[in-house]
Amino acid sequence: VLETLENRHAHRDYLVRLDCPEVTSICPLTGAPDFGRLTVRYVPDEALVELKSLRDHLTGYRERAILQEELVNEVLDLLVQTLSPRYLEVSGEFNARGGIGVVVTARAGVPPELLAHA
Amino acid sequence: VLETLENRHAHRDYLVRLDCPEVTSICPLTGAPDFGRLTVRYVPDEALVELKSLRDHLTGYRERAILQEELVNEVLDLLVQTLSPRYLEVSGEFNARGGIGVVVTARAGVPPELLAHA
Amino acid sequence: VLETLENRHAHRDYLVRLDCPEVTSICPLTGAPDFGRLTVRYVPDEALVELKSLRDHLTGYRERAILQEELVNEVLDLLVQTLSPRYLEVSGEFNARGGIGVVVTARAGVPPELLAHA
Amino acid sequence: VLETLENRHAHRDYLVRLDCPEVTSICPLTGAPDFGRLTVRYVPDEALVELKSLRDHLTGYRERAILQEELVNEVLDLLVQTLSPRYLEVSGEFNARGGIGVVVTARAGVPPELLAHA
Amino acid sequence: VLETLENRHAHRDYLVRLDCPEVTSICPLTGAPDFGRLTVRYVPDEALVELKSLRDHLTGYRERAILQEELVNEVLDLLVQTLSPRYLEVSGEFNARGGIGVVVTARAGVPPELLAHA
Amino acid sequence: VLETLENRHAHRDYLVRLDCPEVTSICPLTGAPDFGRLTVRYVPDEALVELKSLRDHLTGYRERAILQEELVNEVLDLLVQTLSPRYLEVSGEFNARGGIGVVVTARAGVPPELLAHA
Amino acid sequence: VLETLENRHAHRDYLVRLDCPEVTSICPLTGAPDFGRLTVRYVPDEALVELKSLRDHLTGYRERAILQEELVNEVLDLLVQTLSPRYLEVSGEFNARGGIGVVVTARAGVPPELLAHA
Amino acid sequence: VLETLENRHAHRDYLVRLDCPEVTSICPLTGAPDFGRLTVRYVPDEALVELKSLRDHLTGYRERAILQEELVNEVLDLLVQTLSPRYLEVSGEFNARGGIGVVVTARAGVPPELLAHA
Amino acid sequence: VLETLENRHAHRDYLVRLDCPEVTSICPLTGAPDFGRLTVRYVPDEALVELKSLRDHLTGYRERAILQEELVNEVLDLLVQTLSPRYLEVSGEFNARGGIGVVVTARAGVPPELLAHA
Amino acid sequence: VLETLENRHAHRDYLVRLDCPEVTSICPLTGAPDFGRLTVRYVPDEALVELKSLRDHLTGYRERAILQEELVNEVLDLLVQTLSPRYLEVSGEFNARGGIGVVVTARAGVPPELLAHA
Repeated sequence: VLETLENRHAHRDYLVRLDCPEVTSICPLTGAPDFGRLTVRYVPDEALVELKSLRDHLTGYRERAILQEELVNEVLDLLVQTLSPRYLEVSGEFNARGGIGVVVTARAGVPPELLAHA
Repeated sequence: VLETLENRHAHRDYLVRLDCPEVTSICPLTGAPDFGRLTVRYVPDEALVELKSLRDHLTGYRERAILQEELVNEVLDLLVQTLSPRYLEVSGEFNARGGIGVVVTARAGVPPELLAHA
Repeated sequence: VLETLENRHAHRDYLVRLDCPEVTSICPLTGAPDFGRLTVRYVPDEALVELKSLRDHLTGYRERAILQEELVNEVLDLLVQTLSPRYLEVSGEFNARGGIGVVVTARAGVPPELLAHA
Repeated sequence: VLETLENRHAHRDYLVRLDCPEVTSICPLTGAPDFGRLTVRYVPDEALVELKSLRDHLTGYRERAILQEELVNEVLDLLVQTLSPRYLEVSGEFNARGGIGVVVTARAGVPPELLAHA
Repeated sequence: VLETLENRHAHRDYLVRLDCPEVTSICPLTGAPDFGRLTVRYVPDEALVELKSLRDHLTGYRERAILQEELVNEVLDLLVQTLSPRYLEVSGEFNARGGIGVVVTARAGVPPELLAHA
Repeated sequence: VLETLENRHAHRDYLVRLDCPEVTSICPLTGAPDFGRLTVRYVPDEALVELKSLRDHLTGYRERAILQEELVNEVLDLLVQTLSPRYLEVSGEFNARGGIGVVVTARAGVPPELLAHA
Repeated sequence: VLETLENRHAHRDYLVRLDCPEVTSICPLTGAPDFGRLTVRYVPDEALVELKSLRDHLTGYRERAILQEELVNEVLDLLVQTLSPRYLEVSGEFNARGGIGVVVTARAGVPPELLAHA
Repeated sequence: VLETLENRHAHRDYLVRLDCPEVTSICPLTGAPDFGRLTVRYVPDEALVELKSLRDHLTGYRERAILQEELVNEVLDLLVQTLSPRYLEVSGEFNARGGIGVVVTARAGVPPELLAHA
Repeated sequence: VLETLENRHAHRDYLVRLDCPEVTSICPLTGAPDFGRLTVRYVPDEALVELKSLRDHLTGYRERAILQEELVNEVLDLLVQTLSPRYLEVSGEFNARGGIGVVVTARAGVPPELLAHA
Repeated sequence: VLETLENRHAHRDYLVRLDCPEVTSICPLTGAPDFGRLTVRYVPDEALVELKSLRDHLTGYRERAILQEELVNEVLDLLVQTLSPRYLEVSGEFNARGGIGVVVTARAGVPPELLAHA
């Protein structure tokens, strides 16, 4: 479901960070909407993710009842399957419910040293 | 006393951070209330902590006379006992009393490399 | 229940602002704790409020089930009754519940021009 | 559709501000989701708005295709019709699209002097 | 050149603020690019400005050699001519050159009282 | 005790603001030190206050047991007596004690319109 | 010494703000350098100030021993003499010496209502 | 196309960071302008980059249709080819489009330990 | 002079950070007061420092003429002697004098890995 | 030209950071003034730098035409020659010219582990 672009600089390891502050889903326990911000960091191999298709995919969670931990892991799985990246990490920071906020961070691969700068 | 949810992504190490800015207890020396913010970071194994039961547990400190250092260590012990996590860390930042603020940080297990991103 | 101090500069209109960031009560609808910050602004007449007695009074809301709108109005009524100030205003800013935060502001008397600077 | 609570302090003009940072609707021109923050300020007469019903009403915009200017005016009309407040103002601040962010502010009644403090 | 939308709430005075942080033109004295942020505030009468056409118009300054004071006044003239608004104000804040930053603010009509809240 | 300089621009009303973030005194009730920041705003007549003598005077509160409300009024009285200014205002913002912070603002004369810009 | 440009929009009152964060002079009492930030706000009549000549003029204070109050009033006098503006205001904010920071604000003419937005 | 200056301290490894907040190019997919901020960090060998020529080179992207990932890699290649630095890194942070912001970071050489301080 | 409390969690390494923003002493060179903020980080062994006695000890510097570098080292020595901690670090950040601010950081023992989180 | 003080705690490695926000020199290419902030971090051996002499030395750059890269390296050389420190690092952050800001960081010796905390 995600489209890709050719990475013309695949001879070099470099890092791409995507900031997606507009993510909303449905809490499966209460039925009320959740709101969060996803951050994707990856070192591309042959493919770059096309941003409009990523946005459209994230919009699909609008109607989905899903736990926050599972949303983050599911996005990670899809991106890894689509891009076969050298490294990929997804972090989701969700607004507080009942006075408690949640941040979930998952990754695939070994984080590169240059991650600190991005 | 804490309820848990099944971690459906236990095949992967990932990090969950819980921000609990509404913690209050009673200072055993003065009898006056303390106010603080707890941050929990953990890498789940088979279980996730259910947030509403965590909030209710923290609300229980409202009537407790307890030192700040002991509150943090006690929450750590309970979470480790309940979740058997791969890693768990609790940090409590308390409002100043007499012009001095206190932050207490304790952990169980070896902190994972991805802790820096959360 | 509130103690007062003599205002030795009653010949002059001046403004006192009290910042009380540690207020907590019980929501009468859900039974869960509310957390907020009260700000009191007043122009004293003959009496100043003694701060320790104010803090102890606010601590009393810890066990009270009361709506946020009523907490603010109740504190206003008590302070006006105790101090007979030339002007007094109470503002309460409460943490979000269900994604909505609330600020309630009530006053007694005509706000002085110098309020803008405090 | 909105529920109300009795205002027990109707003898006094006071201000209530509601911060609703989690509002999302559908742009009628592009079909893509909009994200925004609504702020309601009002001086209640006999009725207070019940917050859970307000949140549920705002959640209803999740599936609505509506211009940002119209969403703000529509929320204003509903609140005025439901509460018959002494003053009411709605402001909506929406995330940038095409590099331009929008803030819409509408009101009913004469803004009270104490609005500056809230 | 600017397209408009019908204002369906013209019976009411309300305020629209547009934040345009991506404006660039050419300095007629040095030939180097200028960078700035435009803010438009207006009370619409019968017409709303369509945002995509506004963005495209502002993009047109990319190749224009024009003084900052004149860019702001020119945008004001065009918006007033197109919208016949009840009030309109344009403010442009430009990045420092030679250690001096410039902000230019012009308006047409009498600023409404609610401008302070937006 | 305060030295003054001649105001060579006394033909014009203008505003001077002095920011004094290093003020400490002794609380007469507890004997513990208080810490605060004083801000002085004034429109000079014939005299400007010399800053080193002001600093030395404020250092004198280091050993003084004095209420915060009285410290502010006392500094106001001294400055008015020394400078005979067209307007003078003193604001003192003190660190929280027992969870409550205090700001005291007093003035002599009618605040000039240009006070808002300083 | 200051050059001017023709104001082609003199039919309209509008406001120009100039932010000059790089001002340094010599303290006549201690011989040590002072550092500050000047802000000029004006409503032009027939002339705009040319910025490079303003910067060069301010650079001239680098070698001047002058009180902060006098520097601000002197810049005001020069700008008024050169531009004959409808309104002009100069504010200088200087770094702390001996723990006290100073802000001086002077003006010529009646401040326009739109000053609040700039 | 880039000019260089002699590095007179080539006997020592040191770090230079260049902050270029005014970069704009054309999106090859939509034809609309992109806006971003480039940060260059490098350890010079024999040559320093001359800043005016760097600015002029970046201005050249104003008319270029180019992907953000490729702009960053292209600037990296040019700087490495021109300077033969001991280390060089380019990071580009671009404004959100469709609700998603992008940061691209690429480097040549092994990042020095002192990078953390700059 | 410092009192201690028993560390009931001595079986575990954990970190305590104490923020003391209200420290003042006398500069031995000028006789003028210095103002600073001390931060203590330590891993307790058998003893915790009692906060009120620490505050009273720091208040004792109010009358002491002492260099900033020596104040930090002296506090470190006293805390190490009193607590025999597994690790202890003192950092003092002092307000600028003559335009230069100073931060002094000293430690005893090997800093634990978890220091980064506190 | 720099004076020193005896380091009475030379038996211990500790870190001193000096923040010098008021540095100005002359650009040798344009003749216009540069403005910057220097930060010095060092681990003293036998000598501490006396701050007033450091300030006076930095004031000497006021009349000097010198590249930013060279100013930083020159200050480093002088401090190392004067203090023979165990470690020393100088970082200079200069205001943007032509839209590009510059930070230069150089050091002598191996950075100590505790540098991260200062």
